Amino acid sequence: MIEESQQRADEFYHLMNKRRSIRFFSREPVPRELVEKLVLTAGTGPSGAHTEPWSFVAVSDPDIKEQIRSIVEAEEEINYTKRMGRYRAGNTSTLTCDAFAGQMSAGPYKQHHHAPTPASHHQQSRLAQTPPCFKRGKQWVADLKAFKTTWTKEYLTEAPWILLIFKQPYSPLPDGRKVNHYYHEISTSISCGILLAAIQVGREGEGSGGSLQLFWKRFKVTIP
Amino acid sequence: MIEESQQRADEFYHLMNKRRSIRFFSREPVPRELVEKLVLTAGTGPSGAHTEPWSFVAVSDPDIKEQIRSIVEAEEEINYTKRMGRYRAGNTSTLTCDAFAGQMSAGPYKQHHHAPTPASHHQQSRLAQTPPCFKRGKQWVADLKAFKTTWTKEYLTEAPWILLIFKQPYSPLPDGRKVNHYYHEISTSISCGILLAAIQVGREGEGSGGSLQLFWKRFKVTIP
Ligand SMILES: Cc1cc2nc3c(=O)[nH]c(=O)nc-3n(C[C@H](O)[C@H](O)[C@H](O)COP(=O)(O)O)c2cc1C
Ligand SMILES: Cc1cc2nc3c(=O)[nH]c(=O)nc-3n(C[C@H](O)[C@H](O)[C@H](O)COP(=O)(O)O)c2cc1C
Repeated sequence: MIEESQQRADEFYHLMNKRRSIRFFSREPVPRELVEKLVLTAGTGPSGAHTEPWSFVAVSDPDIKEQIRSIVEAEEEINYTKRMGRYRAGNTSTLTCDAFAGQMSAGPYKQHHHAPTPASHHQQSRLAQTPPCFKRGKQWVADLKAFKTTWTKEYLTEAPWILLIFKQPYSPLPDGRKVNHYYHEISTSISCGILLAAIQVGREGEGSGGSLQLFWKRFKVTIP
Repeated sequence: MIEESQQRADEFYHLMNKRRSIRFFSREPVPRELVEKLVLTAGTGPSGAHTEPWSFVAVSDPDIKEQIRSIVEAEEEINYTKRMGRYRAGNTSTLTCDAFAGQMSAGPYKQHHHAPTPASHHQQSRLAQTPPCFKRGKQWVADLKAFKTTWTKEYLTEAPWILLIFKQPYSPLPDGRKVNHYYHEISTSISCGILLAAIQVGREGEGSGGSLQLFWKRFKVTIP
């Protein structure tokens, strides 16, 4: 029994150890069903006081991807030119996690609070790797130069899927008051970890990969 | 290809969906090697600017478990009697995640920053379930009454392993200055999500389970 557990743990370690953050994504399609199953998996995560304080938005519509790319690039340009090295936690009210290749003609998918949770996947992507090996603190922009990274993010329109992940700091009550969600950022981040694991499992045997680019932005997406 | 990915994604979803937060743990042993492999897996996670801003401490020594239990129970008593409903983010400088059954005579295991990352597992635990179905906000203590939960945490000494997970908000420089770690809390929480996935994979086929109890505490463990 323990031997089998050890073996599974070893295999899972090797699989997860292949995950890398990447900046180049295949345009190959990934079906919506797979994307949904991955988000469902993320939604099994624990959360403070069972608030499930997360929203997953999976986007495949090219126009919306274009809009998201504009917003993210504008924000990232500011990061590169002004802000980095002066990180303040207060700046980061929203977690945007874009990743994944895949394609689907359907519009954005809104993951509703408390509904069993839907998903995204870049499985099938073939990856030209640019390993992000950042250093810390004020060196950020200087250190990045070696990697020729800029605020341009082609992959946001190339990847068939973008997943936006939002934390929900509170729930609105009918009377307009707000109920705080305990530990919403931690809970949402834990669910991202489970999501990454699900993506790695899904693309098992497809070589190196797994993908994550994270941006913090105070930014709202209005879902029709 | 896609079909296989879909199937793996489906299976992983079902496995992860069996994870539950629990309060009762088997005393059955879990080897240190397994614990280490699980923490190693958590350490494969992404982190802001590759800072790996986490420390995992796996404890099996009964005396240290006893001390940890005292600290956590004292803190939790305050939560129950005074603090809940007045959650402030500023209170939570340290993440303590206790979980897992397993046993090992060796002392605490310190996961060093930047070293490939070691682990813990409650695999083999048989679980008397008390599902924590908390509600939100000021109702916390009242709502908990139904579950007869108190600040007592027997499982902290019963479980053969306790895993403490610390975020590292900064690194000290030789000259005494501090370098902030970008997104340390989020990165550490993502690694917790990957850890939970690893635990679930390790205990596959052993019925319901997976375990997590999280506490926020400003608390230091000095490792010899
Ligand atoms: C919270 C968080 C924020 C991140 N922000 C960025 C980012 O803004 N740009 C980027 O290229 N990579 C970003 N990353 C990716 C990290 O640089 C990457 O995880 C780290 O270098 C380790 O590489 P790996 O993910 O391939 O293991 C972020 C990762 C995390 C967890
Ligand atoms: C950040 C965080 C903090 C938590 N704090 C506690 C806690 O203090 N006590 C407890 O019994 N459970 C705690 N939990 C467990 C949640 O109550 C549990 O995840 C939630 O009820 C969902 O149940 P599940 O984990 O079985 O899916 C915490 C979970 C998270 C993610």
